[in-house]
Amino acid sequence: MTLLISNIRWLVGTHPLSIEQLKGREISHLPIIENAFLLIDNQRITRFGTMPEPNRPTRADQYVDASNRAVLPAFCDSHTHLVFAASREKEFEMRLKGMPYETIAANGGGILNSARKLGVMSENELFERSLARLEEAQSLGTAAIEIKSGYGLTVESELKMLRVIRRLKEKMGEKMCIKATFLGAHAVPTVFKENRKAYISLIINEMLPKIAAEGLADYVDVFCEKIAFSADETDEILRGAARFGLRPKIHTNQFNSMKGIETALKNRAISVDHLEVLTENEIKLLGNSPTIATLLPTAPFFLNDPHTPPARELIDAGATVALATDFNPGTSPSVSMPFVVSLACIRLRMTPAESINAATLNGAAALEVANDFGSIAVGKMGRVILTKPIPSVAFLPYNFGTNWIEKVF
Amino acid sequence: MTLLISNIRWLVGTHPLSIEQLKGREISHLPIIENAFLLIDNQRITRFGTMPEPNRPTRADQYVDASNRAVLPAFCDSHTHLVFAASREKEFEMRLKGMPYETIAANGGGILNSARKLGVMSENELFERSLARLEEAQSLGTAAIEIKSGYGLTVESELKMLRVIRRLKEKMGEKMCIKATFLGAHAVPTVFKENRKAYISLIINEMLPKIAAEGLADYVDVFCEKIAFSADETDEILRGAARFGLRPKIHTNQFNSMKGIETALKNRAISVDHLEVLTENEIKLLGNSPTIATLLPTAPFFLNDPHTPPARELIDAGATVALATDFNPGTSPSVSMPFVVSLACIRLRMTPAESINAATLNGAAALEVANDFGSIAVGKMGRVILTKPIPSVAFLPYNFGTNWIEKVF
Repeated sequence: MTLLISNIRWLVGTHPLSIEQLKGREISHLPIIENAFLLIDNQRITRFGTMPEPNRPTRADQYVDASNRAVLPAFCDSHTHLVFAASREKEFEMRLKGMPYETIAANGGGILNSARKLGVMSENELFERSLARLEEAQSLGTAAIEIKSGYGLTVESELKMLRVIRRLKEKMGEKMCIKATFLGAHAVPTVFKENRKAYISLIINEMLPKIAAEGLADYVDVFCEKIAFSADETDEILRGAARFGLRPKIHTNQFNSMKGIETALKNRAISVDHLEVLTENEIKLLGNSPTIATLLPTAPFFLNDPHTPPARELIDAGATVALATDFNPGTSPSVSMPFVVSLACIRLRMTPAESINAATLNGAAALEVANDFGSIAVGKMGRVILTKPIPSVAFLPYNFGTNWIEKVF
Repeated sequence: MTLLISNIRWLVGTHPLSIEQLKGREISHLPIIENAFLLIDNQRITRFGTMPEPNRPTRADQYVDASNRAVLPAFCDSHTHLVFAASREKEFEMRLKGMPYETIAANGGGILNSARKLGVMSENELFERSLARLEEAQSLGTAAIEIKSGYGLTVESELKMLRVIRRLKEKMGEKMCIKATFLGAHAVPTVFKENRKAYISLIINEMLPKIAAEGLADYVDVFCEKIAFSADETDEILRGAARFGLRPKIHTNQFNSMKGIETALKNRAISVDHLEVLTENEIKLLGNSPTIATLLPTAPFFLNDPHTPPARELIDAGATVALATDFNPGTSPSVSMPFVVSLACIRLRMTPAESINAATLNGAAALEVANDFGSIAVGKMGRVILTKPIPSVAFLPYNFGTNWIEKVF
């Protein structure tokens, strides 16, 4: 199967193959070839450059004319909770009507609500619902995605979630690159409220060995936050996971700074995610670390929380900044990476170039798939987005809330 | 042409025909028929109710099965600047890079930038570009729309804009209901900076008579704001327009409270639009007035301005609240009513029911077309939105930034 895209007004994100992530201010440079062609052979990029296009292969299968359009690398969404039983718009309505989150949670809302619903749902039903969401993500331009467990919170349900993710991997095949993250430490289940140690022991001594035996997870995650797990507890769980070769991608500094960053760096985390609340010292630590700072701007947007991650300060300090959807039914019920890219400009003051790099190449780095995804380079997978006709690349984040994708390859 | 939609999971917005707008807390009630049918004959709603559907007409043209889907009245977007020459994403980038708005404006940005570009563009080119935007609005569920002039600021260019709007009306016919608003008083042109009175006189004594002679406008608008026109100047222009039978829909209280509301009410305005900054007394005035309070939440969103219109206070005071896009290239470059409905929930704390009512029936009232649009009632135009499969009506605003529209009729 050969695909030739010609007359591309802007071929975006043509970083050299050797660049696997964009640290600090490197993110501000988004290489673009104007009036370009792109050749994809057997799913891989084999050639690209300025027009004229090469001689059309005699047995080529598909030609696309991209006049007045941009072609971008597909998005890499490195933080989602896509496997869940049901949406939670009822809680959204309760919150709008003035009910505090604590009351909603006390009335059975929040993560524990998702856990209860997931516990009683069959694996097949959960798989079908998750598959539909994955197909929506694909239609919105995502080609590589991370999916977490964490609405199970029992041995059985955590395994069910991770098995669903494995089935999604099998089902999607080359159509979507999926990484699975074990997030047993998402919340302390009600039955363990008075005995946190026992739940942590369950995670380390029962869940992790079973997950490792089945090879169900690529990463481990802990929600390091006052309402969830302390830094010491996080450290204990991460060390437990390290025995099985699972590196961390953790939730930290969403509402409080409580030594989550230090703990993550000490445990060689691939990424630290959220970061709405960061001290100057933490920003400096991230600037000097290979760990990626993954920002999730739709969560504070949806919660109408004025805190936003300090993207500019992180970039200036030298950190590698990625963007992801945090897609989940409680705090970010949207799988749209185009909207994340807009919001990162509007609220985090990232430029269009920075925002696109953070959602593509740095997202790929946060999934450890930058060899295959995140930029236009010979040898990488030919997963690209063709836009509708646009006046410029910066128009994409500027034209928020609309659908500027014509086709995803 | 007959259209029969059957098995509608939720038929939304079935207000009695006699209700032409929803004042105060009336807006909180969104009538819904579950498991419904809807019959549209020659563009008009002729019958609807709970299933079973009526006997299918022997010569009916189109059947649609709406299982698991909602059907809503199409949106009525009562405040846009859809006719403009070009998008202004360059200014967006400059702003993100830290340039203050004043500097951007001083360097030729802002409304005067749009005016310069529009001045040199042919009427045909302007028409074609505007038509494409109107078609996008239609695909996003809008069936009735207001379009303002105001990027002309000379006799010739204001007439050019209004003639383009007239051509759009002719071209779209029954596909889109369009109202034209004359906004010569959008900004003071540079050449009149030292002689504001002369520009106001130009509006009143040259523009208005010509526009009235050609019947080009349905309403008059003034930007009542420190950077534009004072309340006294606004009053003078509105009184000038009243001689030609044009009622006001004005921009006011976007950044400052400066007697725009009183001036509008005195001049029997159909609506006052923006209202990010309102005093308690102004809220009370609107609560006791037939003038509609039109909120434009995407403008402060895009400007990353924490001020938001006090929707809850307006509703509680008894005001009629409508929602619109404010679609324009400087401060709200999106024509998506679905996103406005989401944002009104997330940032203005309106409920899904209130937000949908404000974007449909109250939007229709702000366009004086509630006889034909904005709800599901026998006799009204059959302009409706069919959603994709959804779990509930509240899911629509909750699932922000995605495209939940399956088809627009």
